[in-house]
Amino acid sequence: MTNEKIKRIGVFTSGGDAPGMNAAIRAVVRTGIYYQKEVFGIMRGYEGMIEGDIVKLGARSVGNIIQRGGTILKTARSKEFRTKEGRLKAYNNLKKEGIDALVAIGGDGSFTGLHYLTEEFGIPAVCIPGTIDNDLTGTDYTIGYDTATNTAVEAIDKIRDTALSHNRLFFIEVMGRNSGYIAVNSGIAGGAAAIIIPEETMSFENLMTLLTAGEGSSKKSNLIVVAEGSKIGGATELAKKVAERSDYFDIKVTVLGHLQRGGSPTYFDRVLASKLGVAAVEGILKGQTDVMVGIRNSKIVYNSFDSIINHVHEIDQESLRIAKILSI
Amino acid sequence: MTNEKIKRIGVFTSGGDAPGMNAAIRAVVRTGIYYQKEVFGIMRGYEGMIEGDIVKLGARSVGNIIQRGGTILKTARSKEFRTKEGRLKAYNNLKKEGIDALVAIGGDGSFTGLHYLTEEFGIPAVCIPGTIDNDLTGTDYTIGYDTATNTAVEAIDKIRDTALSHNRLFFIEVMGRNSGYIAVNSGIAGGAAAIIIPEETMSFENLMTLLTAGEGSSKKSNLIVVAEGSKIGGATELAKKVAERSDYFDIKVTVLGHLQRGGSPTYFDRVLASKLGVAAVEGILKGQTDVMVGIRNSKIVYNSFDSIINHVHEIDQESLRIAKILSI
Amino acid sequence: MTNEKIKRIGVFTSGGDAPGMNAAIRAVVRTGIYYQKEVFGIMRGYEGMIEGDIVKLGARSVGNIIQRGGTILKTARSKEFRTKEGRLKAYNNLKKEGIDALVAIGGDGSFTGLHYLTEEFGIPAVCIPGTIDNDLTGTDYTIGYDTATNTAVEAIDKIRDTALSHNRLFFIEVMGRNSGYIAVNSGIAGGAAAIIIPEETMSFENLMTLLTAGEGSSKKSNLIVVAEGSKIGGATELAKKVAERSDYFDIKVTVLGHLQRGGSPTYFDRVLASKLGVAAVEGILKGQTDVMVGIRNSKIVYNSFDSIINHVHEIDQESLRIAKILSI
Amino acid sequence: MTNEKIKRIGVFTSGGDAPGMNAAIRAVVRTGIYYQKEVFGIMRGYEGMIEGDIVKLGARSVGNIIQRGGTILKTARSKEFRTKEGRLKAYNNLKKEGIDALVAIGGDGSFTGLHYLTEEFGIPAVCIPGTIDNDLTGTDYTIGYDTATNTAVEAIDKIRDTALSHNRLFFIEVMGRNSGYIAVNSGIAGGAAAIIIPEETMSFENLMTLLTAGEGSSKKSNLIVVAEGSKIGGATELAKKVAERSDYFDIKVTVLGHLQRGGSPTYFDRVLASKLGVAAVEGILKGQTDVMVGIRNSKIVYNSFDSIINHVHEIDQESLRIAKILSI
Repeated sequence: MTNEKIKRIGVFTSGGDAPGMNAAIRAVVRTGIYYQKEVFGIMRGYEGMIEGDIVKLGARSVGNIIQRGGTILKTARSKEFRTKEGRLKAYNNLKKEGIDALVAIGGDGSFTGLHYLTEEFGIPAVCIPGTIDNDLTGTDYTIGYDTATNTAVEAIDKIRDTALSHNRLFFIEVMGRNSGYIAVNSGIAGGAAAIIIPEETMSFENLMTLLTAGEGSSKKSNLIVVAEGSKIGGATELAKKVAERSDYFDIKVTVLGHLQRGGSPTYFDRVLASKLGVAAVEGILKGQTDVMVGIRNSKIVYNSFDSIINHVHEIDQESLRIAKILSI
Repeated sequence: MTNEKIKRIGVFTSGGDAPGMNAAIRAVVRTGIYYQKEVFGIMRGYEGMIEGDIVKLGARSVGNIIQRGGTILKTARSKEFRTKEGRLKAYNNLKKEGIDALVAIGGDGSFTGLHYLTEEFGIPAVCIPGTIDNDLTGTDYTIGYDTATNTAVEAIDKIRDTALSHNRLFFIEVMGRNSGYIAVNSGIAGGAAAIIIPEETMSFENLMTLLTAGEGSSKKSNLIVVAEGSKIGGATELAKKVAERSDYFDIKVTVLGHLQRGGSPTYFDRVLASKLGVAAVEGILKGQTDVMVGIRNSKIVYNSFDSIINHVHEIDQESLRIAKILSI
Repeated sequence: MTNEKIKRIGVFTSGGDAPGMNAAIRAVVRTGIYYQKEVFGIMRGYEGMIEGDIVKLGARSVGNIIQRGGTILKTARSKEFRTKEGRLKAYNNLKKEGIDALVAIGGDGSFTGLHYLTEEFGIPAVCIPGTIDNDLTGTDYTIGYDTATNTAVEAIDKIRDTALSHNRLFFIEVMGRNSGYIAVNSGIAGGAAAIIIPEETMSFENLMTLLTAGEGSSKKSNLIVVAEGSKIGGATELAKKVAERSDYFDIKVTVLGHLQRGGSPTYFDRVLASKLGVAAVEGILKGQTDVMVGIRNSKIVYNSFDSIINHVHEIDQESLRIAKILSI
Repeated sequence: MTNEKIKRIGVFTSGGDAPGMNAAIRAVVRTGIYYQKEVFGIMRGYEGMIEGDIVKLGARSVGNIIQRGGTILKTARSKEFRTKEGRLKAYNNLKKEGIDALVAIGGDGSFTGLHYLTEEFGIPAVCIPGTIDNDLTGTDYTIGYDTATNTAVEAIDKIRDTALSHNRLFFIEVMGRNSGYIAVNSGIAGGAAAIIIPEETMSFENLMTLLTAGEGSSKKSNLIVVAEGSKIGGATELAKKVAERSDYFDIKVTVLGHLQRGGSPTYFDRVLASKLGVAAVEGILKGQTDVMVGIRNSKIVYNSFDSIINHVHEIDQESLRIAKILSI
């Protein structure tokens, strides 16, 4: 793979951080070096690109980071990059460093920015899906989703201990933006009595029916997992409404929050990040551009940004069906 | 240790659950059997005592529970037990089962109830301190505190990953009721920039000074750990007030909540619970009553309920001093 | 799904235990009940079947087990079941309880036994792949593999801490019988310098070359992950041979052993086990028999025992290629 | 605390690494800077001291390390330092950097070296006890012991899952050199049937009696925890001898090994390390030298090296008594 036109590759992380981003950075850097290219890290995403905050990365500089949460390149959101002037500034900084190709690790907001940059300046670019939300079409899994779901499940397990000891009803809110992936899978794995997700229209009345079904059901401990994108209210709101309708339950709420974004990545996220990092660089060298690299049915695939941005990664209906059977 | 007057010991958990309660139950049961006594589990604390929900426990029935969070005997708060009639009903149920001594595992609310029962009916009783709050005088450590603090620290570690990636300011609220123990120690261990606890009067202005000290300090990521008993506002309120005073920070809040109550206990809590469980039964057999068993400077001690109820377990001033030195 | 011929389903675990087996048992029991069948648990696999150690399971009896390692039904290997007399005894016990269909959770040894029972007595049976080894064709993943690989990676992470502090060379042996799955994926995720698996013929000389390549390489810390099925020697043997050839390295060995079999299952294994448990019962009710249920490209599939027993689940060559690029 | 004679403090780690060493380094550095001293890190213990491998450390250079296992200063054993010539070379390197006081983090081997250096060259030095073995008199706890014991317990919990599923007898060997601390406490916390430690002379016959007591005892799963310093043989040897005497048991062995040295430290080890780090620097500034700083009954204490080296940290007899009561 001796693409002579590309000598220097820039890599950066953008948008919300996700466990496994460091494993992806490591893979991009080492693959670049493996193919005798130089690799540069751009700090704080588009912000650092505009400010020219760019550092050279060697094989050793990404040693001992595969197991770390967060991103050593840091990440930020940049308003200025949404303007043509901002992107021009960024491009000039890339040129100054001699960077002639880009690998971005982030979510669909990040891809949109990169799409413009590619169109406007013709610089080859490949994106790696890094977000805990698993909300990107074009890949079965995004980097960080496996870890975040396990983090949610570990928290649910702890809450179950106390719920069972007190016969309490818990509403647990998990992340995922507009996607129900984390909620559905942490809900099944956590043995939730109900799972509330944006993709499915469970009415508040359905929830009340479910909770009050069966003689003495209020005496049991129950966990309800609520996706943050829920259309019928978040965990706090739902708990309040249930409490108003019935003084029968001892109700508590936990909003898991940002701890879902951190932590040492699982093997799955590390291996996924490693594979996608290798494939991103090899894609660049083979002439891919304006694409996201993903994994479908265990195979590497490249999809155009157009086919990904603003499309929905649909939830697996079979999972929803199973959740209902098993919560009897 | 052949106290012939005591043949049957009742054990129960009461108040908020804490990791290690099962290890304490196991120790009480096995020590009772070791001294050839019968042991009975009373379900859901004083509620089960009043309802007569009592089961015999054998050495095997507490097998494979030492590692489990929560309490197999469940716990509850009972209004009825606060009345003399309620306590009479409870006492009659104990008599019916032939239970002639009690071991309670819980916090100071639970001890108060037991104190009345002992006074009114003369039944020997020893308490074991089981609460994550470490808010009991008469013992260096309560069962569950070590585990809860580690749970808080693990969550803080995860949040640090994302804080560092985004240069964010996080307010993290931890449990502890009116005690700052979990906050101080998870704050030191989590490398917090500031720790807000009920025992110390840091004003909101002090906090603002600390946050804005030094050129460019707003660019750093920072973690502030807030005890739920904070007198200057909880994490959510403090974050709001800081945001109002300065648009300089990217601020997020996480209220860890009930996940701090669950989880598999640490070795420390299991060993502590084992020692206190053995000592509670041996105390009963040696004639101790109306006391809490505790550990002070690695030695078993018995203190009267009177000396414990409504007294404060003071925070270690040295820890506060150290927290300040290390957050520079 | 109203298969009137099947009224009682027996479920058991067999062979080596794997994390997630309890989640599979729970799914089988609840799905059976959902379709208004009775479900019975057969203790200790074929051993309990021969001894008639069979218990009725209700929806509640599998509550609070989804998060537990091991198997509540226990498991064993049975010599007697390999004889026709043994199997007849087992079948008669099933008949006595009115059990007219079987779901087995285990590895390919277990399937062989079931295959004979089905052939000889015509009792419908479906297998669920439960083994940490991921060595079964007919499914992308077996229950327990995800958890075991994460357990291995967590151990490797801990060993890396001490390896880096001392500039040591560690040989770490992981499980997997004749399969290199755990080794390859924990090796990539653990950032191993080399991965020795049964499927690939790396000679001892290749290993020496790799270890001694580059000036001063002996000064670096390095981790070598060795699958227990390695054809050039296990971790202990390889370490000894390297030490004999060079006094240059500070070498240590860790054989992870049976801790890889236990622990609370990951979300992935719990969801996988839940899906396969539902699909096994639904398969039985739709007339499937003599098959293993699996998951291929995220879809449920049924494959005949014949197509599975004694076939090899091939290792992903792409993973091996990536491991080499990233260990530079 | 304005000791004008001391301007530059050197800090290093020595001997086996232990979780929490980084927290101690951080505390030494930040406390030094707090008192307006300069702090230098000496790499790889006495080896780096002899080679002059010394780096300046600032408050930020120890940021984000409190949670990391291992030691950023690395550690090694040095033969040369045992000679007077070696120590002279080391001292000259310290002088060259203007280092006029030392803080060492390590075990008693490390203290011996420092004792000579102080005697020979008069350089003030304080030691911090950092070893997982908890084998130092003069402190209730050494840094790393709490984490290592929890690591051992987590491994034992996993092994219990598989032991219970198979009714197996497991011999689990834990670290501790000549000390039984990790074994006793992980054994109690892990619910072990027996605990074999160097301090107590349980004969092999006693062990056989214990294992074979009671009808059908061989059918139960059992865990035996063996300290590596066991006088009647390690786990592998004991398992072999038991197997020879009885074909009744299904026996397995796990030697936990070096994973006990790594991992993120618990809150306890981080707080302990922070307190000892602060106290070491403050001790130095107050004129302490040739001492180890420790914690006794929650208070900071300084003890001369003489009183520590070659003395034994005795095991708590009460713990042994409790282990026996609870394993019935």
